Amino acid sequence: MIPKINIICLLLLYSSFIYSQGTGNTELPISDETQTCIDCHETVTPGIVADWRLSRHSKTTIRDAFSKDSHQRRISISNIPGEGYADYVIGCYECHNQNTADHSDSFDHFDFKINVVVSPNDCRTCHPVEVEEYQDSKKGYANYNLSKNSVYHALVNSVTGLTELDNSKLVTSPASDLAKGETCFACHGTEVKVEGTKIVTSDLGDIEVPNLLNWPNQGVGRINPDGSRGACTACHPRHSFSIEIARKPYTCGQCHLEPDVPAYNIFKESKHGNIFESIKDDWNWDEVPWQTGKDFTAPTCAVCHNSLLANPQGEIIAERSHDFGNRLWLRIFGLIYSHPQPKSGDTYKITNAENLPLPLTFDGRPAENFLQSRSEQEVNKNKMKNVCLSCHNTGWTESQFEKIEKTAVEADKMVLTSTLLMVKAWDKKIADSSNPFDEYPEKLWMRQWLFYANSVRYATAMMGPDYAAFKNGWWNLAENLTKIQDFIDSHSK
Amino acid sequence: MIPKINIICLLLLYSSFIYSQGTGNTELPISDETQTCIDCHETVTPGIVADWRLSRHSKTTIRDAFSKDSHQRRISISNIPGEGYADYVIGCYECHNQNTADHSDSFDHFDFKINVVVSPNDCRTCHPVEVEEYQDSKKGYANYNLSKNSVYHALVNSVTGLTELDNSKLVTSPASDLAKGETCFACHGTEVKVEGTKIVTSDLGDIEVPNLLNWPNQGVGRINPDGSRGACTACHPRHSFSIEIARKPYTCGQCHLEPDVPAYNIFKESKHGNIFESIKDDWNWDEVPWQTGKDFTAPTCAVCHNSLLANPQGEIIAERSHDFGNRLWLRIFGLIYSHPQPKSGDTYKITNAENLPLPLTFDGRPAENFLQSRSEQEVNKNKMKNVCLSCHNTGWTESQFEKIEKTAVEADKMVLTSTLLMVKAWDKKIADSSNPFDEYPEKLWMRQWLFYANSVRYATAMMGPDYAAFKNGWWNLAENLTKIQDFIDSHSK
Amino acid sequence: MIPKINIICLLLLYSSFIYSQGTGNTELPISDETQTCIDCHETVTPGIVADWRLSRHSKTTIRDAFSKDSHQRRISISNIPGEGYADYVIGCYECHNQNTADHSDSFDHFDFKINVVVSPNDCRTCHPVEVEEYQDSKKGYANYNLSKNSVYHALVNSVTGLTELDNSKLVTSPASDLAKGETCFACHGTEVKVEGTKIVTSDLGDIEVPNLLNWPNQGVGRINPDGSRGACTACHPRHSFSIEIARKPYTCGQCHLEPDVPAYNIFKESKHGNIFESIKDDWNWDEVPWQTGKDFTAPTCAVCHNSLLANPQGEIIAERSHDFGNRLWLRIFGLIYSHPQPKSGDTYKITNAENLPLPLTFDGRPAENFLQSRSEQEVNKNKMKNVCLSCHNTGWTESQFEKIEKTAVEADKMVLTSTLLMVKAWDKKIADSSNPFDEYPEKLWMRQWLFYANSVRYATAMMGPDYAAFKNGWWNLAENLTKIQDFIDSHSK
Repeated sequence: MIPKINIICLLLLYSSFIYSQGTGNTELPISDETQTCIDCHETVTPGIVADWRLSRHSKTTIRDAFSKDSHQRRISISNIPGEGYADYVIGCYECHNQNTADHSDSFDHFDFKINVVVSPNDCRTCHPVEVEEYQDSKKGYANYNLSKNSVYHALVNSVTGLTELDNSKLVTSPASDLAKGETCFACHGTEVKVEGTKIVTSDLGDIEVPNLLNWPNQGVGRINPDGSRGACTACHPRHSFSIEIARKPYTCGQCHLEPDVPAYNIFKESKHGNIFESIKDDWNWDEVPWQTGKDFTAPTCAVCHNSLLANPQGEIIAERSHDFGNRLWLRIFGLIYSHPQPKSGDTYKITNAENLPLPLTFDGRPAENFLQSRSEQEVNKNKMKNVCLSCHNTGWTESQFEKIEKTAVEADKMVLTSTLLMVKAWDKKIADSSNPFDEYPEKLWMRQWLFYANSVRYATAMMGPDYAAFKNGWWNLAENLTKIQDFIDSHSK
Repeated sequence: MIPKINIICLLLLYSSFIYSQGTGNTELPISDETQTCIDCHETVTPGIVADWRLSRHSKTTIRDAFSKDSHQRRISISNIPGEGYADYVIGCYECHNQNTADHSDSFDHFDFKINVVVSPNDCRTCHPVEVEEYQDSKKGYANYNLSKNSVYHALVNSVTGLTELDNSKLVTSPASDLAKGETCFACHGTEVKVEGTKIVTSDLGDIEVPNLLNWPNQGVGRINPDGSRGACTACHPRHSFSIEIARKPYTCGQCHLEPDVPAYNIFKESKHGNIFESIKDDWNWDEVPWQTGKDFTAPTCAVCHNSLLANPQGEIIAERSHDFGNRLWLRIFGLIYSHPQPKSGDTYKITNAENLPLPLTFDGRPAENFLQSRSEQEVNKNKMKNVCLSCHNTGWTESQFEKIEKTAVEADKMVLTSTLLMVKAWDKKIADSSNPFDEYPEKLWMRQWLFYANSVRYATAMMGPDYAAFKNGWWNLAENLTKIQDFIDSHSK
Repeated sequence: MIPKINIICLLLLYSSFIYSQGTGNTELPISDETQTCIDCHETVTPGIVADWRLSRHSKTTIRDAFSKDSHQRRISISNIPGEGYADYVIGCYECHNQNTADHSDSFDHFDFKINVVVSPNDCRTCHPVEVEEYQDSKKGYANYNLSKNSVYHALVNSVTGLTELDNSKLVTSPASDLAKGETCFACHGTEVKVEGTKIVTSDLGDIEVPNLLNWPNQGVGRINPDGSRGACTACHPRHSFSIEIARKPYTCGQCHLEPDVPAYNIFKESKHGNIFESIKDDWNWDEVPWQTGKDFTAPTCAVCHNSLLANPQGEIIAERSHDFGNRLWLRIFGLIYSHPQPKSGDTYKITNAENLPLPLTFDGRPAENFLQSRSEQEVNKNKMKNVCLSCHNTGWTESQFEKIEKTAVEADKMVLTSTLLMVKAWDKKIADSSNPFDEYPEKLWMRQWLFYANSVRYATAMMGPDYAAFKNGWWNLAENLTKIQDFIDSHSK
């Protein structure tokens, strides 16, 4: 990378020169409305104004964006969306004033009509392809997939409901909006509602603002006050909306964490994570397309799962997708057994042979109509393999993918053993199957699939052996079976 | 930040020039005594001499420090403390020779009278405000708050005492100084005592040195051989005493860790931590005051809890304090239930209605005289809110603070349920209440408040949802209740 | 470090100049064979070619290497190994064509005879000293030490075997090669076997390649298709083979992780880790010898355990060794009790007084003939102390080393209590001793030594108090004893 560093050094010298001439970003055209926002907010909330100044939004206009080659472009519209927008940087007003008629959180703020929450539907003005892909994905439906699925919703209530003693018995109430919003829906996204207005006291006096419920929240499937689904800021945090941050694994690691989704933890302990943490500062985090070997030498989450990748000659290796299931074929977490990825992101609409909204029955029979066919799986698997093949030979890659599938089968068997034990417990009335998620042995059974089998599958898929072994892995799968067995034995006497 | 990088580049070029002229740091005046120390120690312990050379102490004199604006100054005295000090850099002898008469670890070392341990009382010579704030805080009293509190001390012994089998029964002896020093008091600080002298063999022959017990240790409330409380090096590690290191969350993360104080873990998985890890290298870690938006764009521990902050116009947003409770109003860990922060750092002096040295009774009644009043809480809460308001609007901030308080109430209820179960167990003699910390069901009960309720409260306060959900959070609160209930049921038969 | 930065800046300017003259790396001589590899692979697997271009291998020749001072040299041969090698960079063919006659994974690939796996025996051509040290160490024997040790192998099967229900009883089959390879042997190294050939479909058409079993794998004790032991790429990942990556703790952290070997976790929360994470970017990660204070100011794993260290005057503080036990005297993990380090890396050859291949009996009597004598321990301990003494004084260091040994004794006692409980359980037939690793109370007993006592010992050795206290430490040692006791009590009734 010596050449790149040299170039950076020369650029720095050159920009030192430019800077000393008094020119620079300050001359880019800012709309009058945005300038008015900045005039106050530079004092009231200086952090976000400074953050925006660092962003690409503050340093480019839509017209500039069109001057770039389509693969390098960061917007996905084919025409300038309206005359007023073409030659201004994308500032406060340009985003907070979008589609105000659709927003229940729209209000008059010092004579400007603005929305509190900028939603994916607002971002769609310039980024329609990304928003479409995202909204129809499992992430886009992440709230509905919990809240509109009766089984998952029972699980949520069993985990986050308030448990109190009533006549020596534990009784659990339905979870509060608060508890749900701070746990499951912190990641899945809350439903942000507007309930009248409230007066807030600020440096500029009392101000009337919409009263938002289930807020703040930046969960990936947030239901916004305009009815749209999703939160682009979950990965591109406001107000820098940085591609660098979205590409770094820390972002994904906010939700994809052990014990239930140990992807980030396993990445960190993998060889990929090892290389990333050791030399990440030498990589180019802002280039589009992102070139394997040239811009980076080991993958992060974004490389494998969604970025637009090219080889050093500039040929495209993988297309960008904001449907993060686009290169996935096997679902290895969140359910009792592994199974083909759902065909569609709105998984709450699935119905299985037991008439439950789940992709599998309790004993593992798949709801095939709702899941990818073999050939659909192959398409996605090949996209993923193509990423691996940038660095690994075909033999290596084929063996790795075989391991993933065989490991899923073994982990599933270790779960099935626990299910069979539970069926015995339910049959013997040692546990009450009416709610399968609320008693001690049921908690043990849930650990088997929600934590341990997941870990084992992820650990193979992303090559982090600790999570396959002692850290929520095979050790725990085996130990947990002895616990359930012991529970049944002691309570059968 | 491009301008800043340009400036750095120019400075590098300029300093390259200066360096090539043979001038630079080497010409700063070093006292004869310190020079003598260096002459040997550059060979014997080269690491610490090199570390010191990197420090501000080696690159400035007290007179230089006075030339700065008071907000930029790193010392808090108003006069030069003595003629001899004014024009030398702060070297080995300047610190290790302070107040030797007060130090039981003072000794003659090649004709110099020096102390092994440099204590806060020694640092006070130039940094009196910081030391005063610190010494009276909960951190400054961290040793006493464990060692002089009979309940906590029983807990310490139950956790770290040696447990052996005696006639088939488990019997736990009081914990050894070693075990205590490596666990609780590693963070809280040991009492460093001097017991005669010992001969150590070094490259320079045999040397007689004070024999220090409970050493090495750098716990925050260390009792030093001069009787003072605290260890500045806990956060400003010797011998660079770097403000950068103290400002980085890794420092706080040495003690504020899951499962008992998961602050650092939760920061890491929060959006704040995500942004910090992604772009921290672009930030300015050495500026005083520290300017929101200009020097950094997301908070670390120090930003919210103690740093001197200014907005980009230089106006102060928050005053510096080395009492880390200065912006806190609610205590969310370490005790059975949440409660207002203690009025004073010496919490071992609290007495509650059950005559125990605890801020709450076992069923949650607060020892009000020792805890902040509503209005005292408001003062601190407003200081904290002011930090948030640098980047978040008032509506967002108010909602976030409401969540913190409501979550504490819900978590407290989940603990109360466990306490009520334990009361039943104690009443039924299934467990023995004479020591409430040593039996299996008691360990489960302790987990409820010491690990799980803490996690849930912290996770909301600092926005890291995994610790509210599956990682020591609501999942564990609910599961643990089923375990305690099952224990009572099986042992009641 | 200002001077170093200045120099770097000047070097950058200079190299900018050089680069602009059109000279540079591109002119280094590449063998015709390697050039042919590159011509295809630059397109087929661009990532690894780019990675190699970043490596020292691509930027130096063996003749160049000999021009360096012996302490700075990165090869350990005394003569150029063959005429053909002297003046080419070390490219694809130079490594993949080594010793093909010995490799069962050797094959004809577009008319070149190459091996899929480059083994330590191939690296030995230029790095014989490192390979010898490594191969005879515990790492070099890491596969054999599990697979050829009957007790460990029973443990492996109990942890990773498939457990199924057979007539209401849990029955565990021997672990599959897959499960073993993804867990224990992912770190310890699999035995990579060749089973005929297979056809892989690539961009260049169908290609016949050796069919490798138990592959991919990069475990430290891998048995390679040439019969050699080890994987240099475990720490120097292909194809950059970077010393920087090997020196960074993330590399060691791939396997030395909680709960069984919490070294990396404890380093991270230690003061050493705190300083490393805070200022690592200011350090020089590529210098040989590595100079304390000049190149780094706090240790990483490599500093203490194997790097060639010098003081700022260039005098050697510690010799390099690729036997990572070279500075170790006490073994603090992996077995029931702590004990002197084994004399030799092939620990599967140990026999104790109970005729088991273990360094200790179940009640703690050491197999003295196979373990370091007191004087052998002193030699290694002094090497380690010498590293500490670069920054810490003798008194500090002596106290720290005393703590390590005394803590091991206390932790051992906490394990012994659990063993005595288990002996009672086995005697009373509450558990079946025929396999001591497969029942619930046995799992608890294993946790005592495999997870908790380890943590306590490591936490003292490397100064990370959380792992001595609440995170798999004393808390867990004490709580776990109450669990085992409760199990025995409830099952004795």
